[in-house]
Formats: sequence, C-alpha cells, structure tokens
Amino acid sequence: MEDVVIVTLDKVELKNPILIEGLPGVGNVGKLAADYLREQLHAKPLATIYSKFFPPQVYVSEEGIIRLVSNDLHYWKASTGAGRDILVLGGDYQGISPEGQYEITQRVLDYCHGLGVREVFTLAGFAQGRVVDAPRVLGAATNAELVEAMKRFGVVFSRNDPGGGLIGASGLFLGLGRLFEMEGVCLMGETSGYFVDPRSAEAVLKVLARVLHIEVDFTALEAKAKEIDRIAQKIHDTEKASEPATPQTREDLGYIG
Amino acid sequence: MEDVVIVTLDKVELKNPILIEGLPGVGNVGKLAADYLREQLHAKPLATIYSKFFPPQVYVSEEGIIRLVSNDLHYWKASTGAGRDILVLGGDYQGISPEGQYEITQRVLDYCHGLGVREVFTLAGFAQGRVVDAPRVLGAATNAELVEAMKRFGVVFSRNDPGGGLIGASGLFLGLGRLFEMEGVCLMGETSGYFVDPRSAEAVLKVLARVLHIEVDFTALEAKAKEIDRIAQKIHDTEKASEPATPQTREDLGYIG
Amino acid sequence: MEDVVIVTLDKVELKNPILIEGLPGVGNVGKLAADYLREQLHAKPLATIYSKFFPPQVYVSEEGIIRLVSNDLHYWKASTGAGRDILVLGGDYQGISPEGQYEITQRVLDYCHGLGVREVFTLAGFAQGRVVDAPRVLGAATNAELVEAMKRFGVVFSRNDPGGGLIGASGLFLGLGRLFEMEGVCLMGETSGYFVDPRSAEAVLKVLARVLHIEVDFTALEAKAKEIDRIAQKIHDTEKASEPATPQTREDLGYIG
Amino acid sequence: MEDVVIVTLDKVELKNPILIEGLPGVGNVGKLAADYLREQLHAKPLATIYSKFFPPQVYVSEEGIIRLVSNDLHYWKASTGAGRDILVLGGDYQGISPEGQYEITQRVLDYCHGLGVREVFTLAGFAQGRVVDAPRVLGAATNAELVEAMKRFGVVFSRNDPGGGLIGASGLFLGLGRLFEMEGVCLMGETSGYFVDPRSAEAVLKVLARVLHIEVDFTALEAKAKEIDRIAQKIHDTEKASEPATPQTREDLGYIG
Repeated sequence: MEDVVIVTLDKVELKNPILIEGLPGVGNVGKLAADYLREQLHAKPLATIYSKFFPPQVYVSEEGIIRLVSNDLHYWKASTGAGRDILVLGGDYQGISPEGQYEITQRVLDYCHGLGVREVFTLAGFAQGRVVDAPRVLGAATNAELVEAMKRFGVVFSRNDPGGGLIGASGLFLGLGRLFEMEGVCLMGETSGYFVDPRSAEAVLKVLARVLHIEVDFTALEAKAKEIDRIAQKIHDTEKASEPATPQTREDLGYIG
Repeated sequence: MEDVVIVTLDKVELKNPILIEGLPGVGNVGKLAADYLREQLHAKPLATIYSKFFPPQVYVSEEGIIRLVSNDLHYWKASTGAGRDILVLGGDYQGISPEGQYEITQRVLDYCHGLGVREVFTLAGFAQGRVVDAPRVLGAATNAELVEAMKRFGVVFSRNDPGGGLIGASGLFLGLGRLFEMEGVCLMGETSGYFVDPRSAEAVLKVLARVLHIEVDFTALEAKAKEIDRIAQKIHDTEKASEPATPQTREDLGYIG
Repeated sequence: MEDVVIVTLDKVELKNPILIEGLPGVGNVGKLAADYLREQLHAKPLATIYSKFFPPQVYVSEEGIIRLVSNDLHYWKASTGAGRDILVLGGDYQGISPEGQYEITQRVLDYCHGLGVREVFTLAGFAQGRVVDAPRVLGAATNAELVEAMKRFGVVFSRNDPGGGLIGASGLFLGLGRLFEMEGVCLMGETSGYFVDPRSAEAVLKVLARVLHIEVDFTALEAKAKEIDRIAQKIHDTEKASEPATPQTREDLGYIG
Repeated sequence: MEDVVIVTLDKVELKNPILIEGLPGVGNVGKLAADYLREQLHAKPLATIYSKFFPPQVYVSEEGIIRLVSNDLHYWKASTGAGRDILVLGGDYQGISPEGQYEITQRVLDYCHGLGVREVFTLAGFAQGRVVDAPRVLGAATNAELVEAMKRFGVVFSRNDPGGGLIGASGLFLGLGRLFEMEGVCLMGETSGYFVDPRSAEAVLKVLARVLHIEVDFTALEAKAKEIDRIAQKIHDTEKASEPATPQTREDLGYIG
C-alpha cells in the first residue's frame, strides 16, 4: 500500500490558508488546543490521513462502530473578506517511527501545499518537570520576522529553551515545511509534563486566536482545566496523607496524558 | 522482492463471497475458530500468502518436509442457490511489525476485493484476565445496521469493551476494509488470555454459523476444549497442593497459547 | 540504493549447478562447512553481494586494507563430464532483520536461478544444548523423494527435531526456493551450541561430499576440531578445579562462535 | 518522500576534488576535525542533506530560529593551480538505523561522484578505553599504495587495531566508495572514548593537513583541548576527594561527547 493514504472528503477552494497542527504529545497540549479550535470554529472535515506508520489499530465507539486510527484535516472559511482560511490538523497518533514521522509530515505538507498553504503554526507542550501555575507560551520560528512578530503577542523566545531542539511533528512540520517554501511558528505551552494540561492548551490557543484575529470562547476548556486541577489536587492530598513527613516531588504523579 | 507474494492455487468464480479472518492472537481464539470452520467445510486451497513481514522461518513436518510460514485462503462454495460462498483466511502468523500488518492486510483485502468480497467477518479473542466459564461473544462493526443485526444473534456490544480499541489483524481488516468499500464485523470470544481457548472459539463459531446459515459439527472442538480444561485443572491442583494457604490468582498460569 | 547489490566478478557457463549455502549461525557449522568446501575445491569468485540489510561495517585486514561486509558466491566446475558444477554461498553475516533475510535470500535465489540452479543444499548447526560426541546429521527437505534419498546417506529425519522449524537463511533458501522451482535439502550437524564446532561441520560435509560425488581432504578441518577440543577441555578443567563439588552443566561455557 | 533529499545551494566546478568526511562518533573526533577544517578553510556551503533516516528533530538557535537536522557539504577551492579542491562533509547525526547508514552514504557518494570525487578521507575516533596522552593516528585504507603513502605521514597501521573492523559512516564511506570507484583512507585518532576529544581531532587534522598540503592554524582547537583537560581534571579531583583510597578507573567519567 502507499505509505500514507489521504482520502479527500470535500473539495474546497481556500483563501491564503494557514495550517494549524496539533497532535498528541507532551501534556497533550497541542492536540487539546487544535481539537478545541476545530470544535469552536465548527471546522468541516476535509481529508482523512491513514498510514502504515500509525499503529495497526481501530477504535470502537460506544455504539460499537469501528474507526481506523488516523490524522484528520478540517477547514474553516473566514467570514470576512480580509480574513484567512484555516486548516486544522489533528489525530490519534504521530507516526510511530522516525521514518514514519518524516513520511507522514512530508505527505501532509505536500497535500496542504497543493491547497495553497504557505504558513504553518504548530502547537505543542513544553515539559518543565515541575508544576507550572501560569504557563508561558514559548516560541520557535522559521525566520527572524516571525520571531519579532510573535514577541509582540507575548510569545517568549528563550535562549535556552528548548535546549535540545524539538522532536516530533511540531518541529518537523516547520523543518520540512521549508522544503515546501512554507514559513511557520511553533507555539509551546509550558506544562509539567505529568498531566494532560488544558490550561497550557488555553494559553497557547489564546495567543493563536489573537494572531489569527479569531474569537474563541474558552469556557469549556477552562472547565476541563479545573477538572484536571481537582484530580491533581486529590492525588496530591492522598500522597500527603500517606507520606506526611517527606518532601513532595511532583515527579511521583506519573504521566496521565 | 514484493512485500507480499500471493500465489494463486485455484481459479474459481465465487458468488457474493464473504471473507472470514482468523489468525493467531489472544487465546488463539480467532485461529482456532477459522481453522475449525475450514476443516468442517472441507474448504479448498485458493491461495498462499508469503511475506517478508513474517518471520524468516520454515516449519518441518513429521516426514521431514519443509514449508515456508504463510497465511492461506481457502474457499467453500455454497451448496444451495441462495447461499453465499465463503473464503477463510488463516495462517501461522500475523505480520510481525506495524507496517507489516498494514501491508499484508491491504494486499489480502485487495486480492479478496478482486474475488468479489464486500463483507468481512474477523474472529478474535478478548482477554478478560480471569477465567471465563461461559464466554460471551463481543462485537464491533463498521456500521450501525450490522451492529443491530449482530445483536439479534446474541452478540454483545459493550460500552466499555474493548476500551482501547482493537490492535492487530482483526481490527485492521475492518478498518482498512472500508477503503475497499467492504463492511464487516469483528466477533470476539471472551477468554482468560492465559490459555488457548477452544471453548471461546466454539462460542464465536456458533454465532458465525447461525449468521451464515451453515451447519457445523462441534464435537471435535468440544473435545479439544475438554482437554484444555483437564490441563488447566491439573495446573490448578498442583498450585493448590504446593501453596495451600495463599489465594490463587489465575495470573500464575502463564500464557500457553 | 538497491536493497541488495550483486557485483558479478566472472562470467561463467555452469552445467546443472547446485547451490551450497553456509552462512554464520548456530555453532558456525554451516559457515565452517561451506568455507572449507570452497577452499578444498579451490572454487573461484563469481559474485559479491552487498546489502543495506547487513551491518554498516567494514573489516580491516592485517595489512590495513578495508573490505565491506558481504556475502560471496564462488563456483567450481566439475572435472568429469558426468559431474555437476557447484556454487558455494558464504559470507560475514545473515541479514540482520527479518525483512533483510527475505530480501537477500530472494535476490540471491533469483541470481542463482539465472545461472541455472534448480537444487539447493543448505548447511547449518542444530543446537542440542549438551556436548555432542558423535554428531549426527539431521535433515529437512522440500519433497519426499529427497528425504528418502538423504536417508540412504545416513541423514536422520527425526519426528521431533527441529520441533519449531528452522529460522534464518538455511530454512529460507529452501522455503523461498520453492517459488523459484528449486528443490533442496537442509543438512544440520548436531552441536552443543556453545562452541564453534568444526567436528559438526565435518559430519555435515562428509554427507555432502558423498551426495555430490566429490572428494574432500578433511585433515585441516580435523586439526581445527582438535584445537577446539583442547580449548573446551581447558575451560572444563578450570571449572572443575574452581568448583570441584558441584555438577557441571555445559551451559557455563558460553558461546564462542 | 525520497529517503535522502540533497538540496544544492551552489553550483561549482571542482578540480579533482577530495571528500573529507567527519560525522559525530567516538569522542566526536571526526566531527571536531571536519568542522574545524571547514571553519579554517572558510569553506562555502554546497549542499544540505536531509533524510528520514535522521531523527525527526529540529534545532532552535539562540535567536529562536529552527533548523532541521541535516548533514552538510562545504567546498573549498585550492588557491594554487597545482592544488586539489576539497569537499567537507559534516552534520548533526549519522543515519540512525543500519539501513539508513547505507542509504545516506550511498546517496552522498553518488552526489560526490557526480562532482568528480574519486578519493575519500574519513575522520574518526578510536576508543582505547583509557586516557591517551599523545594520541596516535591509526589508519585503514582501500589499497596497499595508500597504506604505504599514509605510513610516510606517520599514520600507524596496527595488526590488531581496529580488530572488529569499523562500524558506521567512516568505514562505510570507504567500503561503499569502492562501488563508485573511489579509493580512500580512514584516519582514526586515538581517544579515551569518555570525552569529546579536540586533542585527538588535532592529531588527525595535522596528518590530513600535511597530506593535502594545506596550512591550518590550530590555536582555537588547542584552546578547546585545554578546556576539556580542565573539565576532566576537575572531575578527576572531585572523584579523588570523595573516594581517596580507591584506585581510579577512568570508566567512571561517563561519556560527554
């Protein structure tokens, strides 16, 4: 079979479209943000992406209906003449091997290039290894103009973070994107790395919404964030109760995301 | 070499054929059921499937004759005008890498599509992690009509099982099958997951026989089930004798299948 | 690059040639036997086989000259009109992944088929897990006639050995060979599995020489066997000295091959 | 995507060019030497090499600009009529799988062959497992003439080193290079294997400079070497202070490179 199979579900003409990528990863920040954006925009299905580089797995819905694991593109057409159309890429998995990461990213970029995409925003989490109360949004970009532009939206470009670079789809969409003459930005929400982190996703999405001049209602995402807070607090209390005298490191919480 | 090599052994015209898949897996339920069905129907060899995604291994018969590991398609032609022909897919292994799983499944589906297959039943075991006395048959399907149809045959569609979806051939034949415009059902016999489980295979096959309007004599399969029961009982007794005071978890039995 | 690159070194016409395969494996029996046969026949280089499925490695000779790891085909032309020509396949490695095993074997078989090969003998060791004083030669073949023919040369076809089949090149050359309409035999010398075993290689080669009606001088191979015996005895004595009271299992000797 | 993507940045005519390879490896000796040579020669960018056999990773500069991991070719044109032009291959990674090593090496050799390269020097470290005060430069070559020629520059060809051959790019560029009718030499600087080793890189580069008749100012590399010495000494002192009575093995220092 083809390494990557892209099934087009809808034929659309897009106006200067921008690609937003958010796949599972650290704290699931990127996926949470992209999925929430897609829902809030009521973006429509454009294409489904299957690949032998995903696990050989189907999900079963509560009604008993199976669905092959995939990535998915949704589109949103700007309501005003001045606005830009948006493509949102989400999904169940990133490619499960290095080669798979490259193959899938390259195919999706090629497909999106054909739709007119010349700019990419990738959304991700940045693991700090400690609880982050007010997550900053860190950035990396393909050129100096984008760095300056993002700084005006409060994005932090730190000399040392991320030190070892970015591994996975959020970096690769920018890195390979340059071979397709695309420019782009990676927005990374700070997160502990131990939990799925809707609060970090919210921070990322707030920046993105202002950059894209779109309005997003964050009520549902904040509710999710509070639910996670409650669970984290509960675990914290349980630990405190059982080991009252020892200093707590948050390392013990494990990775829930 | 080609990733998957399909050697056709017999040229046949099939009438609205249905594909039954049963490969090695949890409790070997799917393979036991498919192999037993093939034997009871006296299905004839149609094609042998070799692949570099199987282990580089040959089996040696008691007579000293080697045979390269493979999957195999057998066919059975319905005796009555109203009945549907059946293809049974069995074999020694599933593909041993995720990519291999996709490649083999895609090629077999493509081949079967060429033979007229538009419906697939996949047979599997569902590990409960505990001894199951009267195994239920759980289901998952590609559309709501099939879910309803299967419920009428006693197939259970549970909100929570299988929670994480299906991994391997039984899920993939349905998931990829949709790209070939095939609909289908996965029938999963409950099983402990510690033993090969002919009893679970029997439960699955009984449902399938009623769905397909075919008659199957289960005598030999029941004999096999009783033999496994005897072995399990023996291990159980041995354990009891050696550790009389501690509560038994069936986890200790190990995986025999 | 091509997955497998075969560089032809000499153009020859071969008369009904038979392929002898002996690559590194259990006790290095197959490789020892094939290399010794090649030397004794003064077989000439025919082709070198490189592959990305071998390790990315070069060997350096004592003179400082590098050589890329490879498999190699040598040929020997029968001196009498009635005899058959012989191809010997040896080398540094088997393919290091399952897929690599298939790819390399398929390409070499294809190449040999082009040279007229229709019969294959594969040489291997069969690990018994205990010291074997007088190694028998076990067999497996592609058809019943060959089984009967080999029995007349003293080859043992055991109901239970090898129980799980053959894994690796020696099995695969026969299994895939059938897709090239080749018939063949695997000759397996019994060996402990802990040492390189020239004695087992000698047993295998003695059978093969009689089958092929060729004369082989075994002096050098017997010398090698005696050297290994001396080393094994030394280790045995050292162990006995250091742990005089405990029963020895040969498992402690480690794998030298 | 293509397995290996080579983006040409500059079109040049090269005069009898020689390829110098130095990628990350033992003690980072090869990479240090090649990078230093490139800087000292003010070699110009010729081509960037991307591959799905590198990790799916981007680096982020201090200014926040991303860069996809790659290998890179730079060129230097000899100033005198008699001199030879030089190509320097460096980069972030070697291919991360055996197949990847072969694929990348083959593609780069093919590309360089097109530029007229018929001779290759590969630079590497040779791990001695102990501190090496005055690193020798060991050699391996594709033919006896090159061995003799290198001996005249003080390169050591040892009967026993490297015993198991060379694994990775430095060996493979020579081994596969022969399929492109290239001859070549591997220069290996002795190193402990525990540190990045600029001193070993200097030893290698000094030989290479004399072979190529080029002048290199080693001031900066020596400064780097002294810095590493200081760090090593510090660790050594700390260990001595904390475990004063036990003999030190340098194995404890860990691998920093």
